[in-house]
Amino acid sequence: MEDQSQQDRPASPEVRARVLGSFDRQGLMAHLGARMARIEPGRVHIVLPSRPEVTQQHGYFHAGATSAIADSAGGYAAFTLFPENTDVLTVEYKINLLAPAVGDHIEAVGTVLRSGRTLTVCQLEVFGVQGDHRKLVANGQQTLIRVNGPTR
Amino acid sequence: MEDQSQQDRPASPEVRARVLGSFDRQGLMAHLGARMARIEPGRVHIVLPSRPEVTQQHGYFHAGATSAIADSAGGYAAFTLFPENTDVLTVEYKINLLAPAVGDHIEAVGTVLRSGRTLTVCQLEVFGVQGDHRKLVANGQQTLIRVNGPTR
Amino acid sequence: MEDQSQQDRPASPEVRARVLGSFDRQGLMAHLGARMARIEPGRVHIVLPSRPEVTQQHGYFHAGATSAIADSAGGYAAFTLFPENTDVLTVEYKINLLAPAVGDHIEAVGTVLRSGRTLTVCQLEVFGVQGDHRKLVANGQQTLIRVNGPTR
Amino acid sequence: MEDQSQQDRPASPEVRARVLGSFDRQGLMAHLGARMARIEPGRVHIVLPSRPEVTQQHGYFHAGATSAIADSAGGYAAFTLFPENTDVLTVEYKINLLAPAVGDHIEAVGTVLRSGRTLTVCQLEVFGVQGDHRKLVANGQQTLIRVNGPTR
Repeated sequence: MEDQSQQDRPASPEVRARVLGSFDRQGLMAHLGARMARIEPGRVHIVLPSRPEVTQQHGYFHAGATSAIADSAGGYAAFTLFPENTDVLTVEYKINLLAPAVGDHIEAVGTVLRSGRTLTVCQLEVFGVQGDHRKLVANGQQTLIRVNGPTR
Repeated sequence: MEDQSQQDRPASPEVRARVLGSFDRQGLMAHLGARMARIEPGRVHIVLPSRPEVTQQHGYFHAGATSAIADSAGGYAAFTLFPENTDVLTVEYKINLLAPAVGDHIEAVGTVLRSGRTLTVCQLEVFGVQGDHRKLVANGQQTLIRVNGPTR
Repeated sequence: MEDQSQQDRPASPEVRARVLGSFDRQGLMAHLGARMARIEPGRVHIVLPSRPEVTQQHGYFHAGATSAIADSAGGYAAFTLFPENTDVLTVEYKINLLAPAVGDHIEAVGTVLRSGRTLTVCQLEVFGVQGDHRKLVANGQQTLIRVNGPTR
Repeated sequence: MEDQSQQDRPASPEVRARVLGSFDRQGLMAHLGARMARIEPGRVHIVLPSRPEVTQQHGYFHAGATSAIADSAGGYAAFTLFPENTDVLTVEYKINLLAPAVGDHIEAVGTVLRSGRTLTVCQLEVFGVQGDHRKLVANGQQTLIRVNGPTR
């Protein structure tokens, strides 16, 4: 995939600014306490620290919180490859919860698998991170659509 | 499906108590402002009022918030059919975001399609509700697993 | 959904001809022994008789055969609502195999849940049919894209 | 993942024999013309040569054929890690068709992402292969369940 050859180097300042501007308008991300951790062309990392406000009934991260940052990570990964004055919407995603999501924080990584003119497909991974230990707790796949119009 | 014949009548007080007890331990649901709206055997409704804390960059409900209540609605729908001293975990789900999620509130409906000894499959629907108007904004499918042990 | 109000009445002769013409060009459907059983606006039924050529290792219908007719049923359900000189491609689908697929035949029903200008979302159901007995053996959800160009 | 450390070396003769024995009982694989190409612990490759019997309406490989070998590749990848006298069933899978599936043949690769006592999760990839050229045409994710009983 051409996209992946671009990963592992930072995104341009313009792309970073567009991604961060949009992320800051996502009320949910701030409310959960999520923050943008890394922005590369075709790959975005979002981190969510552990706190009682994001748990399910056993004190693990709620699948909804895990999915929310996974969905945003994939959406912004797609967005890094879009031209100006376009925006991104999630069409659908599927996620497997592989293991209880525990740790100091969880980290979602969205990676573009295929970037088309209309549709983009991303891989979604979420890791539970405790100190040096990093474990894959969720894995998914997402379809996104590019829409025209100014990024609001 | 046998399960569906039981829907549309309220769950027993014991089942209601178990579901509500578990729901109240989900930090994320309280933090989002979600509330349990209806509990039937094999079907559960969860409502999430509109507020800036649950939005994406355009002010719509964030797909992560939509998914979070859909996931919980499906999980508790499965849970209503489980025996005592068991619990439920989401194995995976897939959700299509059909339309921008707008309204006074959104309402997730989880419905058991098939209830097995180990695995349960649910349908997930989320409606945007504005006054009398009710529109399907997301549709999904979820697999859950029953685990033994006291409901904590 | 507006589309569903049109279901349960037969499709127009023009739509039927376009669907059947395309179906007849699907080498796989003929090779499996599948046949088009019903064409309504936004809903299509495809039937696959039991034979050793479509089984998995226990003699049940193979998930691949079940999925193949489900995918085609959803694709043609979408296609019934498209204008002339367009065609349909599957973007993705997800399917749960709910029970062993057994019977004289299986029947896939694809139903349009949402029909947009670019994307269509379908529900997929597959039933195992043995005489009068009809059991849901698979349930899924599918995203399709409309593409321009003559239907070849 | 522990499983992946075992990949890239061949499976034991016993595992190979069990996998091939089961594969040979899948009537659909023979009928499509698919063959087992590689068996490693936690990873299986299945190849399907191009022929009119596996096409959709434009002459590409039908999504149903693509999915069928992807499903079997994932199922057997899981099966390589199972103890004797157990068997594998597909619970569900989701697949994105990324590009038209063309080539001399397509090759499905199923890889175990997580192997649990009850459930296994696999990644599914399908490549279109034309001479030296190899292109990812489908990507998916699958959940499987281990069942007890003699491998028939």
